[in-house]
Amino acid sequence: MTYNELYQQIIKKHSFLCVGLDSDLELIPEHLKSSKNPIFEFNKAIIDATASYAVAYKPNTAFYEVEGIHGWDQLEMTIRYIRGIYPDIMVIADAKRGDIGNTAKQYAKAFFEKMNCDAVTVSPYMGRDSIEPFLEYGGKWSIVLALTSNNSAADFETNIIVNENNESGMDTQLYKNVIRKTMTWGSKENTMFVVGATRPESLKEIREICPDHFLLVPGVGKQGGSVEEVAKYGLNSNCGLLINSSRGIIFADRTHRFAQAAEKEARNLALKMELLLKNI
Amino acid sequence: MTYNELYQQIIKKHSFLCVGLDSDLELIPEHLKSSKNPIFEFNKAIIDATASYAVAYKPNTAFYEVEGIHGWDQLEMTIRYIRGIYPDIMVIADAKRGDIGNTAKQYAKAFFEKMNCDAVTVSPYMGRDSIEPFLEYGGKWSIVLALTSNNSAADFETNIIVNENNESGMDTQLYKNVIRKTMTWGSKENTMFVVGATRPESLKEIREICPDHFLLVPGVGKQGGSVEEVAKYGLNSNCGLLINSSRGIIFADRTHRFAQAAEKEARNLALKMELLLKNI
Repeated sequence: MTYNELYQQIIKKHSFLCVGLDSDLELIPEHLKSSKNPIFEFNKAIIDATASYAVAYKPNTAFYEVEGIHGWDQLEMTIRYIRGIYPDIMVIADAKRGDIGNTAKQYAKAFFEKMNCDAVTVSPYMGRDSIEPFLEYGGKWSIVLALTSNNSAADFETNIIVNENNESGMDTQLYKNVIRKTMTWGSKENTMFVVGATRPESLKEIREICPDHFLLVPGVGKQGGSVEEVAKYGLNSNCGLLINSSRGIIFADRTHRFAQAAEKEARNLALKMELLLKNI
Repeated sequence: MTYNELYQQIIKKHSFLCVGLDSDLELIPEHLKSSKNPIFEFNKAIIDATASYAVAYKPNTAFYEVEGIHGWDQLEMTIRYIRGIYPDIMVIADAKRGDIGNTAKQYAKAFFEKMNCDAVTVSPYMGRDSIEPFLEYGGKWSIVLALTSNNSAADFETNIIVNENNESGMDTQLYKNVIRKTMTWGSKENTMFVVGATRPESLKEIREICPDHFLLVPGVGKQGGSVEEVAKYGLNSNCGLLINSSRGIIFADRTHRFAQAAEKEARNLALKMELLLKNI
């Protein structure tokens, strides 16, 4: 999926919503648990209920790996289902992979070729050669962790780095160094950054560094971030935002009415987004 | 596996060798490729040939994920095989996972409960809550990326951090901050650090920060590191090292004699280690 295809989908749907498929088997409705592929059946119903509002789905690999082979199978089934029925919607594997070059190449092959995802989240800790193999795929995206939504982002991500390779020649924070360096390896056509919705004040500074890149913003809903605050500093003239909600949508209701509740939550977020998009 | 159990195994085998199972389907011997589970058959032969010298096996998840469900199945088969036949040998999932708390908890459950590994490699970028769920398992290990063996470790890992929470009150490097902070979350009984064999000069400084922790050291063999150099600065009175070789052992020969060649390479490394262990 190209930058322009993503933008066109946002315009068409009046939404920049990403739905996180953190489909914890323990939390899905009881009546689904006896089916052969409960996580897939759950995802399928969530996807059908929210596809009018979602421009991206983001399965989180941890919730599939924890179920072993059967989980991995249901992850692949979920991706095939989205690909088959909703081919315009972006599929993001939230995998946060990161390893040396020859291993990163295998991860890129796993998620881009074997599973046919559009995008994968990657961890920058090990530097350029852990990210570059993902950037070699045309029409695919690397979504690099920058400033995450969790409290302990302060442990390392916001560490002050002595002036190294940044334009200003001044001290900067680690996550800003990550953004600046990654921008020299890829472009706005194949790279996004993860910025937590719980840090809207930082979005302004991030937009000064990367005005044109898409940002994937988790942390609205259960984690406390607000769509309006994120949009205030994060929107650019091509939207430039994918705001993710996972638990707030998929576990809005845990009875047999889970899909209707998910539809309602997704619609509410999309309505907020529609209003915000009128200003760009 | 406890710290003492690991140490006792090292003493018994006169070796601190970890064999990396980076079992790339494209590189395994041709005659195995027609079998039902070629990666597992390859691993089984490598394990049987090297188990006298290896105190740990380290399957790298990327090489299994790239084969989809069948790859994940063969990863589980490999771990079950080691567990069943060689229950004293440590199993390290080289997965480099790292995510917010509720997701990290699922990864810990996947690798420690579902797959019954002793240890998993984790990425520190997102800070404490991405590591802590792994530390909650008794007898299990978190192996945290510190200073890796790849060239681009210099992009972020060695960035100079303005004096933050380190004992000296002086500027330090990111990877040293990672080691110092992680040491306050776990102990030498449940935490190791990854330090590349390509950086022996840094091992001396790392040993000053964490004299008692085990270090997992990849990068000997194909990547150019030397066992003697690593041991010179890295050994402590309880050994404190696991030196990993992957491709140098498992792909030493790619014909039907691959297992014998792997045995020879593992034995050569173990003989070097036996000599070095006499000095501790």
